[in-house]
Amino acid sequence: MDSSTIIAVASIVMAGLTTGFGCLGPALAEGRAVATALTSLAQQPDAAATITRTLFVGLAMIESTAIYCFVVSMILIFANPFWDHFLSAAGGK
Amino acid sequence: MDSSTIIAVASIVMAGLTTGFGCLGPALAEGRAVATALTSLAQQPDAAATITRTLFVGLAMIESTAIYCFVVSMILIFANPFWDHFLSAAGGK
Amino acid sequence: MDSSTIIAVASIVMAGLTTGFGCLGPALAEGRAVATALTSLAQQPDAAATITRTLFVGLAMIESTAIYCFVVSMILIFANPFWDHFLSAAGGK
Amino acid sequence: MDSSTIIAVASIVMAGLTTGFGCLGPALAEGRAVATALTSLAQQPDAAATITRTLFVGLAMIESTAIYCFVVSMILIFANPFWDHFLSAAGGK
Amino acid sequence: MDSSTIIAVASIVMAGLTTGFGCLGPALAEGRAVATALTSLAQQPDAAATITRTLFVGLAMIESTAIYCFVVSMILIFANPFWDHFLSAAGGK
Amino acid sequence: MDSSTIIAVASIVMAGLTTGFGCLGPALAEGRAVATALTSLAQQPDAAATITRTLFVGLAMIESTAIYCFVVSMILIFANPFWDHFLSAAGGK
Amino acid sequence: MDSSTIIAVASIVMAGLTTGFGCLGPALAEGRAVATALTSLAQQPDAAATITRTLFVGLAMIESTAIYCFVVSMILIFANPFWDHFLSAAGGK
Amino acid sequence: MDSSTIIAVASIVMAGLTTGFGCLGPALAEGRAVATALTSLAQQPDAAATITRTLFVGLAMIESTAIYCFVVSMILIFANPFWDHFLSAAGGK
Amino acid sequence: MDSSTIIAVASIVMAGLTTGFGCLGPALAEGRAVATALTSLAQQPDAAATITRTLFVGLAMIESTAIYCFVVSMILIFANPFWDHFLSAAGGK
Amino acid sequence: MDSSTIIAVASIVMAGLTTGFGCLGPALAEGRAVATALTSLAQQPDAAATITRTLFVGLAMIESTAIYCFVVSMILIFANPFWDHFLSAAGGK
Amino acid sequence: MDSSTIIAVASIVMAGLTTGFGCLGPALAEGRAVATALTSLAQQPDAAATITRTLFVGLAMIESTAIYCFVVSMILIFANPFWDHFLSAAGGK
Amino acid sequence: MDSSTIIAVASIVMAGLTTGFGCLGPALAEGRAVATALTSLAQQPDAAATITRTLFVGLAMIESTAIYCFVVSMILIFANPFWDHFLSAAGGK
Amino acid sequence: MDSSTIIAVASIVMAGLTTGFGCLGPALAEGRAVATALTSLAQQPDAAATITRTLFVGLAMIESTAIYCFVVSMILIFANPFWDHFLSAAGGK
Amino acid sequence: MDSSTIIAVASIVMAGLTTGFGCLGPALAEGRAVATALTSLAQQPDAAATITRTLFVGLAMIESTAIYCFVVSMILIFANPFWDHFLSAAGGK
Repeated sequence: MDSSTIIAVASIVMAGLTTGFGCLGPALAEGRAVATALTSLAQQPDAAATITRTLFVGLAMIESTAIYCFVVSMILIFANPFWDHFLSAAGGK
Repeated sequence: MDSSTIIAVASIVMAGLTTGFGCLGPALAEGRAVATALTSLAQQPDAAATITRTLFVGLAMIESTAIYCFVVSMILIFANPFWDHFLSAAGGK
Repeated sequence: MDSSTIIAVASIVMAGLTTGFGCLGPALAEGRAVATALTSLAQQPDAAATITRTLFVGLAMIESTAIYCFVVSMILIFANPFWDHFLSAAGGK
Repeated sequence: MDSSTIIAVASIVMAGLTTGFGCLGPALAEGRAVATALTSLAQQPDAAATITRTLFVGLAMIESTAIYCFVVSMILIFANPFWDHFLSAAGGK
Repeated sequence: MDSSTIIAVASIVMAGLTTGFGCLGPALAEGRAVATALTSLAQQPDAAATITRTLFVGLAMIESTAIYCFVVSMILIFANPFWDHFLSAAGGK
Repeated sequence: MDSSTIIAVASIVMAGLTTGFGCLGPALAEGRAVATALTSLAQQPDAAATITRTLFVGLAMIESTAIYCFVVSMILIFANPFWDHFLSAAGGK
Repeated sequence: MDSSTIIAVASIVMAGLTTGFGCLGPALAEGRAVATALTSLAQQPDAAATITRTLFVGLAMIESTAIYCFVVSMILIFANPFWDHFLSAAGGK
Repeated sequence: MDSSTIIAVASIVMAGLTTGFGCLGPALAEGRAVATALTSLAQQPDAAATITRTLFVGLAMIESTAIYCFVVSMILIFANPFWDHFLSAAGGK
Repeated sequence: MDSSTIIAVASIVMAGLTTGFGCLGPALAEGRAVATALTSLAQQPDAAATITRTLFVGLAMIESTAIYCFVVSMILIFANPFWDHFLSAAGGK
Repeated sequence: MDSSTIIAVASIVMAGLTTGFGCLGPALAEGRAVATALTSLAQQPDAAATITRTLFVGLAMIESTAIYCFVVSMILIFANPFWDHFLSAAGGK
Repeated sequence: MDSSTIIAVASIVMAGLTTGFGCLGPALAEGRAVATALTSLAQQPDAAATITRTLFVGLAMIESTAIYCFVVSMILIFANPFWDHFLSAAGGK
Repeated sequence: MDSSTIIAVASIVMAGLTTGFGCLGPALAEGRAVATALTSLAQQPDAAATITRTLFVGLAMIESTAIYCFVVSMILIFANPFWDHFLSAAGGK
Repeated sequence: MDSSTIIAVASIVMAGLTTGFGCLGPALAEGRAVATALTSLAQQPDAAATITRTLFVGLAMIESTAIYCFVVSMILIFANPFWDHFLSAAGGK
Repeated sequence: MDSSTIIAVASIVMAGLTTGFGCLGPALAEGRAVATALTSLAQQPDAAATITRTLFVGLAMIESTAIYCFVVSMILIFANPFWDHFLSAAGGK
């Protein structure tokens, strides 16, 4: 295997792993937050405005960790500095 | 194994793994959200409108992490920049 | 092993793994959703219409993640672009 | 090992793994659904019709994920396109 | 190792693994279902007919996933198409 | 290692693993069923006849999955078609 | 390593593993059954006869899975057909 | 490594593993049984005779699975038929 | 593989792993914090100001650990001192 | 590595593993038993005599599984029949 | 691989692992602390001053363990004595 | 590697593992025992004498399993019969 | 790899692992302690002095185990006797 | 690798692992003990003297297992008899 192949394989593998594994936590956390929001709504319907507002802020914060993972995956696929270096250094070798 | 074979194998493996593993979290989270929605509906039927609306927003948010994984899988199979590079560089080698 | 063999093996392995593992989460999530639906029905039989409707929407949403996995498996077996490329490139080699 | 042997081994291994592992989730989920159905029946015998109907719809939905796994196993054993290709390409080699 | 040996070993290994591992889920699920059936009977003896009938339908459904695994094991041992092919192709080699 | 040795080793290993691992699930499930049966008996001694009858049917059903594993082990040790084939093909080699 | 050595090693390893691992489940299950029996006795001393009788039947049933494992271990050590075959085929080689 | 060395190593390893791992289950199970016995005694001191008698029968039954493991270890160290065979066959080689 | 390739691969792999795995904890922790915030809001709507203020401070603190991971990933991709050293030392080798 | 070295290494490794791992279960079980004993004493101080007596019998029984592991370790270090055989057979080789 | 490459790879890998894994514990612990703080605030709003003060001291203490991990990562990347030694010893080799 | 090196490495590794892993169980068990002792003291301060006495006996018993592990580690480091044998047999080789 | 490289790599790896993994336990334990302190403060504000004093002593004790890990990491990086020995023995080799 | 290098590497690795892993149990156990102490103090402030005294004795006992691990690490780094032997035997080799 020449160098650019190895870089490509490593980038593909990590792009998949980072998104695939990194979405586990945010998904579970959002599920928990939504679930308690529903319980709270059923228990205290009068506080619906405060609850949904807090829920959306919280979901956005949790989603941010999923975004970090997705961003790293996209960087590894489409803006990978190591890959760019090997392409320019090794040309079409 | 020549370079394009390795890239292809890595892409196939990661496409499957990313979707297969990445759906675990969203599925469990949606199950939890739906389950508490049903409990809340049974407990407070009057708040059904607020509960179902919050549930659908939450499900969409959780589903988004499953979509990230599915998108990465599809990119790896059908729009893989590394694969395209090797195809153009190595031709039918 | 020549290239097409490796591609075939990787496709077979990932097709099985993706469906086999990817069904774990949806199955458990659907079991949870159905279970709480039954508890809610027993607790509040009057809300049966709302509960079953919400349940079926939720089950469809959860089932969608299982479908993603099944779709990826089917793509890997019957519409694999890498396999098609090697078949056309390498012929019957 | 020649190519057809490798394909055959991979197919056998994945056929077993997919069914063996893929039945874990549906079985546990059905056990949970049946268990809560029984609890609900004991708690609210009057709603037996609604409960059992919802239970059977839910069990069918969960069973569908087990069927996906079984289908993939059967495809890998009896309708494997890779195996067919190697048989026709390599003959009885 | 010649080809038929490899096929035989893979079939033996997967036959054992599929049944051995695949029975874990159904057994646990049936244990849960039976356990709640007993609790429900003790709580509501008057609904014994409905409970036991629902229990037996549920047990049959759960047992079906164990049967899938057993069927795959038996197919791998006694009706393995790959093994038959190698026997006919390679004769007694 | 010649072929019959490999077959023999694989059969020994899987015979042990299938029984050793496959008994984990049924044992735990039976323990759970017996435990709830005892709790139910203490709670509702009048329903002892129904409870013990349901318990024994349930235990038999759970035991059946353990029997599947034991049957596969015995087949692998004493009625292994692959072993018989190699014995007849390879003689006492 | 000649053939009989490999068979012997595999038999020793599996004999230990099968008993060592296979006793985990029955032991835990019996612990659970005994524990609930004691709780039930403390809660309903009048039903002591029914409880202990059901307990002993249940323990015997659970113990049966441990016996399966022990039987397989003993077969592998003292009545191993593969070992007997190699001894008779290979003599003292 | 000659044959007797391998047999000896395998016997040592499995003797340790079988006892070391196989004691995990019985120890935890006995701990559970003793714990509930103490709870039951505190709750119903009048049933002390029945409780302690049932406890000791149960402990003996659980201990039996630990004994199985210890017996297999001792057989592997001091009455190993494979070791005896190699000693007699290979002499002091 | 020459030195710069190895450094590049290690950097890619760790950049993905650090973000992918390191986001698991913060996501789950934020999910828990948001969930209890919603429960608390439903229980004590009068303390909404204190609760949301404490929640946001806590979320920021938890997010900081996710930021650490993201920072390390970005350093490994875009400001890696080892990579810079090999680039300057080995040039385009 | 000559034979006696291998035997010695295997004995050292298993002596450590057997005691190190085998003490996990008894320690946890004794912790549980002591914990419930203390709870029971606080709940029913009048039954202190019966409780402590049952506790000590139970602790002795649980400790016996730890002793089995320690005994196997000591046998492997100081009374290892395989080691003695190699010492006498191979002398100081 | 020459020495400085190995050192660089080991430093990169451990820098990522230490931060990525080491943040798991603090994040979960802070999530738990914040969660109970919110519960306590909802339960006893009058003690808000004491609760938030204790919370911040506790968060700082927990954050300190995350800082340890981040410090070790930064030392490994930017102030690594082994790397400095090899750079000075081996120069640009 | 000559024989004495291997023995030394195995002894070092097992000495660390045995203590490091073997302390997990006793520590957790003592934590549990102390925790329930404190709960019991708060619930029944009058029985403080009996509770603390039973606690100390129990802690000593649990500590004994940690001592077993520490003893095995110390034997492996400072009184290792295999090491002594190789030292005397191989001298300073 | 020469000796000093190996020592350096092992030191880097263990320094990271020890801190990264060793902080998991203390962080979780401190989170638990802080959490219950907050619950206790909300439940019994009058005992705030005793509770916070006991909390700080406990946190210091738990932190001490994190310090042990950090100390070992720092010793391995900056005061490693094996590294010093190889530096002095092998010089700049 | 010569002998002293191997010994040094093994000592470094085990020193880190023993402390890093061995601190997990004591930290969690102390966290639990402190947590229940705080709960008990809030529940029964009058028994503060007895509770804190019992807590400190218990913490000291739990800390002792962490000390064992730290002691073994320090012995492996600074008073390693195998290292001393190789240094004296092999000199500066």
